[in-house]
Amino acid sequence: MPTRPTHERNKGLALDRSLIARLPLFKGLTAAELDEMLRGARSVRYPKQSAVFEQEAEAHSFFVLLDGHIRVVRTTPEGHQVIVRYISEGEIFGVAAALGRTTYPASAIAAVDCVALVWPNALWSELSLRFPSFGANTYKTVGSRLQETHTRVVELSTEQVEQRVAHALLRLVNQTGQKTDQGIEIDFPISRQDIAEMTGTTLHTVSRLLSAWEERGLIVSGRQKVTVKDPHALVVLAEHRDRR
Amino acid sequence: MPTRPTHERNKGLALDRSLIARLPLFKGLTAAELDEMLRGARSVRYPKQSAVFEQEAEAHSFFVLLDGHIRVVRTTPEGHQVIVRYISEGEIFGVAAALGRTTYPASAIAAVDCVALVWPNALWSELSLRFPSFGANTYKTVGSRLQETHTRVVELSTEQVEQRVAHALLRLVNQTGQKTDQGIEIDFPISRQDIAEMTGTTLHTVSRLLSAWEERGLIVSGRQKVTVKDPHALVVLAEHRDRR
Repeated sequence: MPTRPTHERNKGLALDRSLIARLPLFKGLTAAELDEMLRGARSVRYPKQSAVFEQEAEAHSFFVLLDGHIRVVRTTPEGHQVIVRYISEGEIFGVAAALGRTTYPASAIAAVDCVALVWPNALWSELSLRFPSFGANTYKTVGSRLQETHTRVVELSTEQVEQRVAHALLRLVNQTGQKTDQGIEIDFPISRQDIAEMTGTTLHTVSRLLSAWEERGLIVSGRQKVTVKDPHALVVLAEHRDRR
Repeated sequence: MPTRPTHERNKGLALDRSLIARLPLFKGLTAAELDEMLRGARSVRYPKQSAVFEQEAEAHSFFVLLDGHIRVVRTTPEGHQVIVRYISEGEIFGVAAALGRTTYPASAIAAVDCVALVWPNALWSELSLRFPSFGANTYKTVGSRLQETHTRVVELSTEQVEQRVAHALLRLVNQTGQKTDQGIEIDFPISRQDIAEMTGTTLHTVSRLLSAWEERGLIVSGRQKVTVKDPHALVVLAEHRDRR
């Protein structure tokens, strides 16, 4: 059972602007403006597997992930889960307020132990008007996510499952990859079931594909771990439908 | 070959605010404010099958559809087409500027003869700051489209093709349906190929499904025309995966 989130603010410490000064989201804000942004926020720890928010819950807050990885998941009425995306360090998420929504359309689950800054939604209008670059950067993020989601629709509509799984791994590598001796490792625990939920296929098919790719030396995979040894070969698999 | 768009503004007539006063997008604006919005716009006719804008072209304008239906299409590098969505009367589209993009991510094609208001992107910041409700309504539209696109990802990931086609028809009926003697007619020309491009399947499969549904009395379909006679039965097909 995951423990409950810990509110750092309870310790009575002011948040330091160095937490957010380097993030593209806050680019262009002065030191005083960063301090003002932070005055509205609190820092919260979310243990691995805990929910930052739940699908259909009232949207009370928006978030910036300081550390960790968040899995955004939609559950269908029949109980099927689809991973909508992963959120990485420095990204804003849970921006229902910015999009005129009153509930969260999906659940956000800590894939590892996470730390996030949390602002009450009531501050969204004020902060986005006061710091227009912050508002514009948020909407730029929304725009990228809309395009990324369209890309998934296109992939699901036109690609074979092998291409989709290759594309999903390449996206994770681009988003979170860490160089290791063996290749580029996806920097958080990811199971074969997670990959199935990202690509609209079954655990069985993902296992079969990963095993075949491992035999061919394209990847190394372990429990909740994937390292891409030959990204170029994976790109070829993902792009060249007629060369499978 | 489609004829070129006609710029109404060339006639030197001012645009009348009655064109937009009734649209939810501009709700809350005074008569003077509506006039000010319109001063930045021109009205353009797009003949059936002409492109309002092309995928990857420089984003110069944003649009509000006054009359007609627009098909938004993404083409893959391999030449596959996927219909991203249909735009109906009163909707804003081509909002690349609002999302910090410099190019259009998809093409917008007139599904029938259309009329749209066209604003230069350079006016986006000014107008959305001056009329915050217009900005907020635009982002609310973007939020709905993001959720709608996630819903398609979920459908493509978890549903059988029969459910997806049923969902697509129900969405079109909700968005554009007109009551007729026979049932609810989708209010613009839609081919079986279009439906295939909306649901990630083939023309052959769509034809097979529509013929079966027609035999069962659920729909009537003709050349580029679909009428839903029994929406309830279609909902049952779309939702109840175990009752197929």
